[in-house]
Amino acid sequence: MKTAFALHKIIFIGSGNVATHLGKALYQKGYIVSQVYSPTKKSADALAAQLKSKAITNLKKLDLTADVYFIAIKDDAISDVVKQLTLIDKVVVHTSGSMPLAVLKTTSDNFGVFYPLQTFSKNKGIDFTNIPIFLEASNKKTFGLLQSVAEAISNKVQAITSEQRKYIHLSAVFACNFSNHMYAIAAGILSKQQLSFDILKPLIAETADKIQLNDPQKMQTGPAIRKDLKTMRMHLKLLEDDKELKMIYKLLSKHISH
Amino acid sequence: MKTAFALHKIIFIGSGNVATHLGKALYQKGYIVSQVYSPTKKSADALAAQLKSKAITNLKKLDLTADVYFIAIKDDAISDVVKQLTLIDKVVVHTSGSMPLAVLKTTSDNFGVFYPLQTFSKNKGIDFTNIPIFLEASNKKTFGLLQSVAEAISNKVQAITSEQRKYIHLSAVFACNFSNHMYAIAAGILSKQQLSFDILKPLIAETADKIQLNDPQKMQTGPAIRKDLKTMRMHLKLLEDDKELKMIYKLLSKHISH
Repeated sequence: MKTAFALHKIIFIGSGNVATHLGKALYQKGYIVSQVYSPTKKSADALAAQLKSKAITNLKKLDLTADVYFIAIKDDAISDVVKQLTLIDKVVVHTSGSMPLAVLKTTSDNFGVFYPLQTFSKNKGIDFTNIPIFLEASNKKTFGLLQSVAEAISNKVQAITSEQRKYIHLSAVFACNFSNHMYAIAAGILSKQQLSFDILKPLIAETADKIQLNDPQKMQTGPAIRKDLKTMRMHLKLLEDDKELKMIYKLLSKHISH
Repeated sequence: MKTAFALHKIIFIGSGNVATHLGKALYQKGYIVSQVYSPTKKSADALAAQLKSKAITNLKKLDLTADVYFIAIKDDAISDVVKQLTLIDKVVVHTSGSMPLAVLKTTSDNFGVFYPLQTFSKNKGIDFTNIPIFLEASNKKTFGLLQSVAEAISNKVQAITSEQRKYIHLSAVFACNFSNHMYAIAAGILSKQQLSFDILKPLIAETADKIQLNDPQKMQTGPAIRKDLKTMRMHLKLLEDDKELKMIYKLLSKHISH
């Protein structure tokens, strides 16, 4: 992690979780956040206040003197914003896991991707130090600039192609979105029995902790890996009233067992 | 957590992960582990050495003067061991999440279940303080004895019926076994792209950490909950060569989105 070699002026287009956490981390490292854009005034104001920045709700009011423009919005809103941007010599980046670099090619000669691999939530702070940040850029100079920004907050900055990034994002859907859904299903099963989700918390913490130092494949436990048919049949019976959950249980157990 | 009101003499039938971790925790609290049984001499010896105990490989050599006999073996081996046990006034327990209490009824008048809800692995220590231990017993006196043992190592001791325990075990399969499998799938996707699983570790840690204070349903992120069809279609295309993974992706996304 290096100190920024110059105090860049940056702008956030978007005011959601990624913009908020990334904005805060960069602001804390001395970056000047000149503007925060959101079509929703309330949310532009809220983030702007935290970053000592100016809120705007119209892209026509965009400050054209900043160094890096971060587009941190939902994937399907990116192309709409892109159409409104002509920044020529400025650096324009998006923070998406799945959108290609090329989606930004009309905005500037200097464009890139700045993808932090983490799940961000409201009201929960994030330390970026060990969060991987994957970079891609349209040219060397832009890459260098993005690298200096990324290295100001993270020790894990890495160049990656759009193609590799797609697979990283896909793997994150399994590791994060789907594992969280497993927690939600478990919580639902317990709640139907008037049991508290709290009882699973040490188990979930330990399950996630085990793979920090071990291959998850080798850490697999449970009836499916033991091929314990009796227990699996019993579980399927408990799920009898829920066709979809039954199907999920069967499919995952089958996938584990081979 | 209380101190044991008497130094009980206990025996472990089984020498796997549950026996090892539970045995160590109780041994550290002053319990005398008189014997460790395993049909495999090497593994009986290994655990017995750690608990300053005696290894036996034949149940006919069982010390009949202990207070509590812990059966901590695979579910499908329990009934076989039960057939060989006649302990009358001793307390006999199993540690299984899915086996009913009644499976022990021929072993003694005093039988019970002692189910710690955690995933145990070789070479990784466990602090039992916050691990829920679920108890069930054939009579009050037995329950009281088990409670004193459980409370010697855990602050989260709770009475539970065999029926509730089945659901707890089922929920644990989702929260632990299936979420670990999601990590394994993610690792597989990355490895095919020559990318290290290490890049997902902060994400996995944060995903598990988020639900310690929040409802997992509310913490759900990703393309499925956003109904981002474009990204989901792109992911399914990346999985084109793997029918089963594609099916898992589809099924879980569908289940998340409603």
